[in-house]
Amino acid sequence: MTIRFAVLGCGRIGKMHAEMLARQVPGASVTVVFDVVDAAAQSVGADIDARVATSLADAVSANDVDAVAICTSTDTHVDAMVAAAEAGKAVFCEKPISLDVAAVDRGLAAVAAAGVALQIGFNRRYDPSHKAVADAVKHGAVGDVHLVNIISRDPGPPPIEYVKVSGGMFNDMTIHDFDMARYVTNSEVVEVYAKGAVRVDPAIGEAGDIDTAVVVLTHADGTITTIDNSRRAAYGYDQRVEAFGSNGKASSDNTHQFNSVLATEQGYRRPPLENFFLERYAKSYLDQWDAFVAYVTAFAGDASVASPASGADGRAPLVIGKAALLSMNENRPVTIEEIHNAQQESNS
Amino acid sequence: MTIRFAVLGCGRIGKMHAEMLARQVPGASVTVVFDVVDAAAQSVGADIDARVATSLADAVSANDVDAVAICTSTDTHVDAMVAAAEAGKAVFCEKPISLDVAAVDRGLAAVAAAGVALQIGFNRRYDPSHKAVADAVKHGAVGDVHLVNIISRDPGPPPIEYVKVSGGMFNDMTIHDFDMARYVTNSEVVEVYAKGAVRVDPAIGEAGDIDTAVVVLTHADGTITTIDNSRRAAYGYDQRVEAFGSNGKASSDNTHQFNSVLATEQGYRRPPLENFFLERYAKSYLDQWDAFVAYVTAFAGDASVASPASGADGRAPLVIGKAALLSMNENRPVTIEEIHNAQQESNS
Amino acid sequence: MTIRFAVLGCGRIGKMHAEMLARQVPGASVTVVFDVVDAAAQSVGADIDARVATSLADAVSANDVDAVAICTSTDTHVDAMVAAAEAGKAVFCEKPISLDVAAVDRGLAAVAAAGVALQIGFNRRYDPSHKAVADAVKHGAVGDVHLVNIISRDPGPPPIEYVKVSGGMFNDMTIHDFDMARYVTNSEVVEVYAKGAVRVDPAIGEAGDIDTAVVVLTHADGTITTIDNSRRAAYGYDQRVEAFGSNGKASSDNTHQFNSVLATEQGYRRPPLENFFLERYAKSYLDQWDAFVAYVTAFAGDASVASPASGADGRAPLVIGKAALLSMNENRPVTIEEIHNAQQESNS
Amino acid sequence: MTIRFAVLGCGRIGKMHAEMLARQVPGASVTVVFDVVDAAAQSVGADIDARVATSLADAVSANDVDAVAICTSTDTHVDAMVAAAEAGKAVFCEKPISLDVAAVDRGLAAVAAAGVALQIGFNRRYDPSHKAVADAVKHGAVGDVHLVNIISRDPGPPPIEYVKVSGGMFNDMTIHDFDMARYVTNSEVVEVYAKGAVRVDPAIGEAGDIDTAVVVLTHADGTITTIDNSRRAAYGYDQRVEAFGSNGKASSDNTHQFNSVLATEQGYRRPPLENFFLERYAKSYLDQWDAFVAYVTAFAGDASVASPASGADGRAPLVIGKAALLSMNENRPVTIEEIHNAQQESNS
Repeated sequence: MTIRFAVLGCGRIGKMHAEMLARQVPGASVTVVFDVVDAAAQSVGADIDARVATSLADAVSANDVDAVAICTSTDTHVDAMVAAAEAGKAVFCEKPISLDVAAVDRGLAAVAAAGVALQIGFNRRYDPSHKAVADAVKHGAVGDVHLVNIISRDPGPPPIEYVKVSGGMFNDMTIHDFDMARYVTNSEVVEVYAKGAVRVDPAIGEAGDIDTAVVVLTHADGTITTIDNSRRAAYGYDQRVEAFGSNGKASSDNTHQFNSVLATEQGYRRPPLENFFLERYAKSYLDQWDAFVAYVTAFAGDASVASPASGADGRAPLVIGKAALLSMNENRPVTIEEIHNAQQESNS
Repeated sequence: MTIRFAVLGCGRIGKMHAEMLARQVPGASVTVVFDVVDAAAQSVGADIDARVATSLADAVSANDVDAVAICTSTDTHVDAMVAAAEAGKAVFCEKPISLDVAAVDRGLAAVAAAGVALQIGFNRRYDPSHKAVADAVKHGAVGDVHLVNIISRDPGPPPIEYVKVSGGMFNDMTIHDFDMARYVTNSEVVEVYAKGAVRVDPAIGEAGDIDTAVVVLTHADGTITTIDNSRRAAYGYDQRVEAFGSNGKASSDNTHQFNSVLATEQGYRRPPLENFFLERYAKSYLDQWDAFVAYVTAFAGDASVASPASGADGRAPLVIGKAALLSMNENRPVTIEEIHNAQQESNS
Repeated sequence: MTIRFAVLGCGRIGKMHAEMLARQVPGASVTVVFDVVDAAAQSVGADIDARVATSLADAVSANDVDAVAICTSTDTHVDAMVAAAEAGKAVFCEKPISLDVAAVDRGLAAVAAAGVALQIGFNRRYDPSHKAVADAVKHGAVGDVHLVNIISRDPGPPPIEYVKVSGGMFNDMTIHDFDMARYVTNSEVVEVYAKGAVRVDPAIGEAGDIDTAVVVLTHADGTITTIDNSRRAAYGYDQRVEAFGSNGKASSDNTHQFNSVLATEQGYRRPPLENFFLERYAKSYLDQWDAFVAYVTAFAGDASVASPASGADGRAPLVIGKAALLSMNENRPVTIEEIHNAQQESNS
Repeated sequence: MTIRFAVLGCGRIGKMHAEMLARQVPGASVTVVFDVVDAAAQSVGADIDARVATSLADAVSANDVDAVAICTSTDTHVDAMVAAAEAGKAVFCEKPISLDVAAVDRGLAAVAAAGVALQIGFNRRYDPSHKAVADAVKHGAVGDVHLVNIISRDPGPPPIEYVKVSGGMFNDMTIHDFDMARYVTNSEVVEVYAKGAVRVDPAIGEAGDIDTAVVVLTHADGTITTIDNSRRAAYGYDQRVEAFGSNGKASSDNTHQFNSVLATEQGYRRPPLENFFLERYAKSYLDQWDAFVAYVTAFAGDASVASPASGADGRAPLVIGKAALLSMNENRPVTIEEIHNAQQESNS
């Protein structure tokens, strides 16, 4: 059985997903694509032989569509999720679901009401190196986890125009690390302490954001996670996770541009790291789709089947990010409970 | 400008090349495919929207074809090469050109007479890690090269049926290492000493072949190369090249299945190596096509433009393989000159 | 010229220093040794052909002594320092100088008044791997430093009896990391946030201490340092420092028990780390003595000659440790200024 | 019980052994030292509080001596061995026993006749990294061994004066690798093929020696060993051993000058290798003495107790070296049997 997709959004990430689903994912095909910029949809549609929908609603409700991949801009995710859920389709949604927790809750409620499958696009969970760390924890090789270290440094900052609308570094970049901390430990975060700084580019500070951060997360089970972020690592895209516990540690290393060493009187030299996230995480995107296909196949309306990255997994990092921002601004540890209470007040 | 290909042979390797050319190689497209097993050609043709030719001759001579990719069985390479050359097409030919040196010479003569471009499929030349070793030599980082070590061990032996027809381990497996030795040093081999053994599987010995070998090559510039081969490395596909010289050494390392380490009281553990050559060398196949497109574009009838892997590069490893076989059988060093002289006698 | 030492304290660390000074440090010799347990002094004295003093005062004031190495128990360091300074001897003092900042100030005042040389035993500054990180920062290879990560995990906890009197993990173990943070960045710490936990052994908690900690230090120049501590790493003595900045990063790796790899179907296996601090840091202890000899030789009464680890370097980590303890107990960031102010109040 | 040594020869290596035995080897002490250059003996004797003998005979026959360490020049080893054996002392002899096989046989005959313990100074057997390779083979972790690779490159050539008298590179440098091949495989060498070259320094060639070599050894059990030698590796002292077999491989890696990495836009850089053999192999020399003490203690006149490096282990590499020299000179494989037959003829 093949899962037939409607792909919403044909920008860089939507195009990548559409091509993967059309050509590289067993059990998947793309029936229809949509983008508010019609030319983008036409180009991708022609490339992969998919129909171009004239509206998001048409794409989502088509009879020959089983699942919807939401790759549009963040502010439109929830509406698309609700539409897809109401049409009874399985839903894949790129992260973040939304920057607004209340909107997230609206989307998740629609999914729950419709009883459809939902998976959030935290692709790093499927990276073979990071996954091996999580698996080592899950299978007990690390023992009780005491400490987790996440180093996550980009090769270079995004354009200032993006910085201005991204929702801030915690929402745009650290969100992956918040998810990684929950994924690796399998324990909820209960407290956050964050320090941020502008060290890479003053223009980022002028745009109201930071480019360097350290975050300390305390988990419900007592594990302490440190996150170390920078918008610019001169030696490439630096992505490391280490889980330390009573039996030892599991850690993921980086991928160099190639595997060669030059040894001279000056020492031993290896090349810098891979630079681009689509290249570094290529396999994780493919494996994410395999996980979605397996999940949707197993789900079949049975909500007890766990999503590889559930709605709750999509919501938690947003709340952690809010706590981190408050912590940084007020230079004090902030509990998740405090954020939840504030959220409930603002909801009521 | 796009180079339009006819792909001859739609087996495992031909199918991979056809799909790459159709989808992943800028400046390339596939017009027509052919296979003596028509169903194989139909399947690939449908997959990539290419015409299926009814004969090799039709595929090669089509007006909308600029280049021919010869991916058929080894014994048919030369006839296809001659046909493509006579049709004035650029030629890409999988290695080995042929197991028969006289046949190789016939093919190369046709290419020379027609003045067409020719590139042999020594894909490992484009592997980023091995290429970095060759580049370090070329750019002088290693200084004068004194010693080269090539370790080339397969994860497991091929089926016995293949062993019986492959032309022997030196022709089928070590041929890549003979090419690597010439590629890295940029110096011709003048003498060969080979030791072979059956250590992996007695059935390989019963089929008349070996599964374990050490070969010592002496180059015209005095460099000595050692090659170490096994048909079965329990820990994966082991592919290492090291060039040592007056300024130091350049070496290529292996790729592990993923980049994680588990550290416990028992020590630090990394996963085994990647197991499958198509996976290990995936990028080299793509880069090989980029090199072909660049070469054919630059060539434009000008035979002074050097091929990334010329006809002479395709011929030399066959001769080295013959010397290795004679050396192993008679347990003595054998010069390339001795093989050439014997070849000339048999030709006359 | 040889610097003649009186070694005070002949326990594990004093014995090691006495033997090194007697046999392995060019420009050093040991004239006299002392220990309150006379048998310990007699044994070391016989071993290295040194006189055994009948009192600390006699050892410190001897005419054939140029320098005093204070390796006694922590609570006696300051009195010994004052006595040595008043006798006009160069002083080497094991860390920590004292757990009491007022006492430290009394010792440093005596050293300043006497105009003698003083070096504190922060041996890790001389570890070739950590030193290379500090040197890379100093020489600009890392650029402006943004983030420092220190991972410092012992192979196993000390005896509970020691835990009860050590002054707590921050004073006994993390003190090295506080010093490392200042040494690598060359910037004072201005704020501390600490999380501690009992994860390794409940008995440590019952003794009033912690065994697991994360500390975030903010430096005057904006650098943020994270420290990750555990009393027990199953895979050995884990000691890593990483300094990240605008030009890249410098990091120190661990030493394995030996340099071998076993590769099988189960993967690649290296041995665990070296387990014992005297073995792991053996070279740092020797290089520390070379640095002391060079410093004392250059000093010659000229207080402008900088100590490799000055009295101020000995004092600062104690203050940071107090801030860390307060931060942990009250779960809030604590400034160094707050500790200084409290210290001044209690002094007045 | 302490084994009391007479140390013969107080040059660089003898001095090192005398100091180790006097200070660092449990169960060992040095009673007497001797050197034909009396000043050398006086200096070492004073340093370690040992008596200086007026003749080799006196040193060897002293009543308060249990074992003799022969560290004199190679041409005097056998006479010293005979004298020590006849005096009933346990014998440690630096390698090579002699460059003359007949002389070796005379020494071994004296040892056998006296029934004393004998250990040859192949210190690399005790290097923890190489030993781990041999142990992995011995304990079956590698399975049946098929191939062994030994890379052994010095950081720089010895003085030409030494080259002229060393007996040639095979006797002076490769001898360690011949021993390593036997030690790791535990199988005798039956055939040798050697290629040599002068690539590092023409003056070495003018002195009648080579500085670059590849040697292929065939063992009795079918294992093939390759040895790769150079007198000068720009990046330091390169010492690697790899044993490959049916279950995988065990390999020893090099030690860098320190364990740090600098990562910048130019890549990841580690320091060069340790440069000096006494530093690189320091631990192996100590462990060699521990092995000698254990062996002599267990021996106690019982010749069935195996030496960690027996007289036969000292003899075999000399014969392999002769085969290598003949092979190189005549460019053909040479059997060990051929050398033995020639030796017997010349003896008769």
